[in-house]
Amino acid sequence: MSAPTTACCAPIAREPLGEAEAAELAALLKAVADPVRLRLLSMIGSHAGGEACVCDLTDAFDLTAPTISHHLKVLRTAGLIDCERRGTWVYYWIIPETVNKLGALFAPLAEPTAG
Amino acid sequence: MSAPTTACCAPIAREPLGEAEAAELAALLKAVADPVRLRLLSMIGSHAGGEACVCDLTDAFDLTAPTISHHLKVLRTAGLIDCERRGTWVYYWIIPETVNKLGALFAPLAEPTAG
Repeated sequence: MSAPTTACCAPIAREPLGEAEAAELAALLKAVADPVRLRLLSMIGSHAGGEACVCDLTDAFDLTAPTISHHLKVLRTAGLIDCERRGTWVYYWIIPETVNKLGALFAPLAEPTAG
Repeated sequence: MSAPTTACCAPIAREPLGEAEAAELAALLKAVADPVRLRLLSMIGSHAGGEACVCDLTDAFDLTAPTISHHLKVLRTAGLIDCERRGTWVYYWIIPETVNKLGALFAPLAEPTAG
């Protein structure tokens, strides 16, 4: 209809991204741009104690264990999660620094306090 | 090495995403998970006045105009940008509401003020 009256205030809209930075962020975004991986990430992060057993994750999906493993590996390769084996099971947790890179890109700045 | 001592505080790590929400967000993330589209988005958003002429965008890349058009269309279909023709040129601007959906997913919560 007409031109915008307000510009978006997220960091991505504050200055042009360089080529190298854009390539790095695009790779990170590709890792999360999948419904199963988004759900895995949110299940891991919101699990009691901040970590989840692979057994809990697999049970929540109508997918085979190898498929879940593949998605977990993509998240891990991207640096979004890490894991450790303890006895029978592998436990996963989120790496906040990597998630925060995405937050830093899209997070809206605080609005000026009104009223 | 060892289990995490702090959980990530981004909204994605606060509660498990539902299937429908994860599918919607994954589609949005796919649209931005590309270096050229990330750069286009940041060029549009950071342009003077909050909008950019397609002529400015095309000049910044070693890509053909149809390739740039394709990427702009992906961003537009995802609801991340909109455009309007004025005379010879088409002008693009960011739709903040859509960018903010990604911000709402990954933005870190404010840390408790320490000292």
